[in-house]
Amino acid sequence: MKPTVNIVKIGGKVIEDRETLQLFLTDFSRIKGPKVLVHGGGRTATELAAKLGIASQMVEGRRITDMPTLEIVTMVYGGLVNKNIVAALQAVGCNALGLTGADMNCILAEKRNSEPIDYGYVGDIIAINALAFAQLLQQGITPVLAPLTHNKKGQLLNTNADTIAAQVAVALCKSFEVTLSFCFEKKGVLLNVHDDDSVIDLIHETDFDQMKMTGNIADGMIPKLDNAFATLKAGVKKVHIMHHTAVQHLGTSSFTGTTLCL
Amino acid sequence: MKPTVNIVKIGGKVIEDRETLQLFLTDFSRIKGPKVLVHGGGRTATELAAKLGIASQMVEGRRITDMPTLEIVTMVYGGLVNKNIVAALQAVGCNALGLTGADMNCILAEKRNSEPIDYGYVGDIIAINALAFAQLLQQGITPVLAPLTHNKKGQLLNTNADTIAAQVAVALCKSFEVTLSFCFEKKGVLLNVHDDDSVIDLIHETDFDQMKMTGNIADGMIPKLDNAFATLKAGVKKVHIMHHTAVQHLGTSSFTGTTLCL
Repeated sequence: MKPTVNIVKIGGKVIEDRETLQLFLTDFSRIKGPKVLVHGGGRTATELAAKLGIASQMVEGRRITDMPTLEIVTMVYGGLVNKNIVAALQAVGCNALGLTGADMNCILAEKRNSEPIDYGYVGDIIAINALAFAQLLQQGITPVLAPLTHNKKGQLLNTNADTIAAQVAVALCKSFEVTLSFCFEKKGVLLNVHDDDSVIDLIHETDFDQMKMTGNIADGMIPKLDNAFATLKAGVKKVHIMHHTAVQHLGTSSFTGTTLCL
Repeated sequence: MKPTVNIVKIGGKVIEDRETLQLFLTDFSRIKGPKVLVHGGGRTATELAAKLGIASQMVEGRRITDMPTLEIVTMVYGGLVNKNIVAALQAVGCNALGLTGADMNCILAEKRNSEPIDYGYVGDIIAINALAFAQLLQQGITPVLAPLTHNKKGQLLNTNADTIAAQVAVALCKSFEVTLSFCFEKKGVLLNVHDDDSVIDLIHETDFDQMKMTGNIADGMIPKLDNAFATLKAGVKKVHIMHHTAVQHLGTSSFTGTTLCL
């Protein structure tokens, strides 16, 4: 039987609040067996850009990563956020190692085509170095991934953390039984967006198709779930969409949140 | 026989100029066998602090690392400088991995005593995780160390890059034949500080003692050389003090610069 691995993605407010982050990391450190943490950047990058007088350009809700912005996300995601998470995990006995895609060439990407929209220094993933991850995990090391990749030509690239988590999960399927958990501020996928307690425990793919047809799902959730089901089809065993405090119950009967399966 | 390892420290202007850095990294990547790069921060941290309106406080020529300053050095050293070096090394075929002391708990430190001078979040090294370095080197990975450590209680600490290079060199002596190279803007230790070509090729410890007595050495160089001889006494085979362009000739008869030995 393959060993299990938990891949957990956090972002947003969890990262921005020191105490919340510390609680989350303590829970995360208690997950048994191999694990990987993928983090986003929160609003720190936007705040630093504002302080430095660098305007954040957005197109269709997405940030344009020009060179000054790339430098900021490299500092904030790759430095401040990543290294503080690593230090906090070490403090609770988790042997963390902070990585961007450039480190050990673990995530290779290419700069997104500038047509039809030039997003700047944004990377689309080409290859995950599954062997590098497997070696680290076998040594008891917990990779902590910042949302940055590289093109192996010397260029760092800003890359979506959800996508990194999904692609690393798929790449590790050959050697591991993979559970992929997306943590956010809600308790899971909600039946009624106005009722935070209307969490759907389990969504099969057929349910999801029906929900899309009947409109019983928030628009913003559809691409997230589409991507999640794609990882399941590619071999990931289980995908959770859950509140960050639920990480302490991962793999137990006390778990609350949404579980997706085929 | 033990395998050899080259530990190379760069700092100052090499890091600040993109083209110079790229040339240096290409030369560094060609060093045969296991190698470790340790980098300082250059002036980028001071510049970013100034842009953000954070005053750099200096006492006796040393920077006080208060919390805003620690955040800046974590961003600049651990993020911007470290990750760009890693990406540049990957581009020339060197399998680099950026590390702070927190990553894999590779350098444990304690916050310096606040008496007689409170330097803030500055770390004095307690332990080097030699096993972690040895494992990485055996896997063909090149550690790239930023001048940051941690106390394993969640606190990152600003730590002198020369000291990191020296202590990592000493810690690796048990398993490797270690050469430690300090690169800077001069061609080596100069007999006459006003003549850049008056490089002393070789300094034995007895020569050094004599030079100190006769005053035939620049004051600023004495603590550097004292530290270098201490690493030799602790088992390091060779210490070089050299111009950064000399790294291409390390270990060959074309090498120019100062070599220290007991």
